[in-house]
Amino acid sequence: MSSAAVAMDWEVHLYFTFWGLRMLRIGEMEKAGLDSTYKDLEEGMKKRLEEMKYPTPYQMLKQIKSSGRLTIYACTPTMSMFNIKKEELIPEVDKLAGAAQMLDIASGADVSLFI
Amino acid sequence: MSSAAVAMDWEVHLYFTFWGLRMLRIGEMEKAGLDSTYKDLEEGMKKRLEEMKYPTPYQMLKQIKSSGRLTIYACTPTMSMFNIKKEELIPEVDKLAGAAQMLDIASGADVSLFI
Amino acid sequence: MSSAAVAMDWEVHLYFTFWGLRMLRIGEMEKAGLDSTYKDLEEGMKKRLEEMKYPTPYQMLKQIKSSGRLTIYACTPTMSMFNIKKEELIPEVDKLAGAAQMLDIASGADVSLFI
Repeated sequence: MSSAAVAMDWEVHLYFTFWGLRMLRIGEMEKAGLDSTYKDLEEGMKKRLEEMKYPTPYQMLKQIKSSGRLTIYACTPTMSMFNIKKEELIPEVDKLAGAAQMLDIASGADVSLFI
Repeated sequence: MSSAAVAMDWEVHLYFTFWGLRMLRIGEMEKAGLDSTYKDLEEGMKKRLEEMKYPTPYQMLKQIKSSGRLTIYACTPTMSMFNIKKEELIPEVDKLAGAAQMLDIASGADVSLFI
Repeated sequence: MSSAAVAMDWEVHLYFTFWGLRMLRIGEMEKAGLDSTYKDLEEGMKKRLEEMKYPTPYQMLKQIKSSGRLTIYACTPTMSMFNIKKEELIPEVDKLAGAAQMLDIASGADVSLFI
């Protein structure tokens, strides 16, 4: 979705909280799989994505970042809650921020989605 | 929610992606149940819905569609990813579309929800 | 998020439906844990939240409510579907409402999120 948005010249702000934040830890995106409900589909999907030569989630994030129109935020309360340090996060993270900053950005956005 | 929205004379656009898209396959909505976390509640809920003479998900979708105010989109990248063909989808699907078209519609909407 | 929002002087409307509604039952929030996918993280998180002297979910809800800027809605169709009576819900619930009322409020809001 972010990929389509930057291709449309939109400015994208991704705020990672709770489970999302965990995905920002170095090496975590590479391990990411499907939710337990859909575990049986994981292998087929991964194989298919390879056949399609689809970029991996981290490669895709870096591509979107290179557009210059993506800002990535890590949720500070979640970092405390799960005891995650800034050094553990991928270097593409732009800012550490609380919910107030996220809501502020969301209120000025054309589309805000909680995924 | 869509049912309430069309009853309010709203125009509804439903974009089905990832798990959502799978629900558009013929026969899939009839099999739909609850997520593994809530599996234990499924039987009670289904029984209760029958007692209430609640329409099934597919019957409800057809009712909303008959209002003429619902457009259903199937996400094309997801179709590739899960190798789903157009012929496998229910006939109520109006358009195959990518994320760009979805974002475009969302940006002009009063309410956009990712469910 | 609601906590940050009321601190910013925003008016917050929380509409609880489906699983969310179940959380409004007396005693339910105290039992709340993580989704099955993340069950293994639950103990660590709960311990950490205690160390941080973080309020429990229900304490937090009451704090936000005391701001006078939070309105809590319980979804009436869900109440029927799970056979939940008004007396089973926490006293902080302000209104019983259907999806139409929720959509009406969402359409006038700056930010609407489905969580």
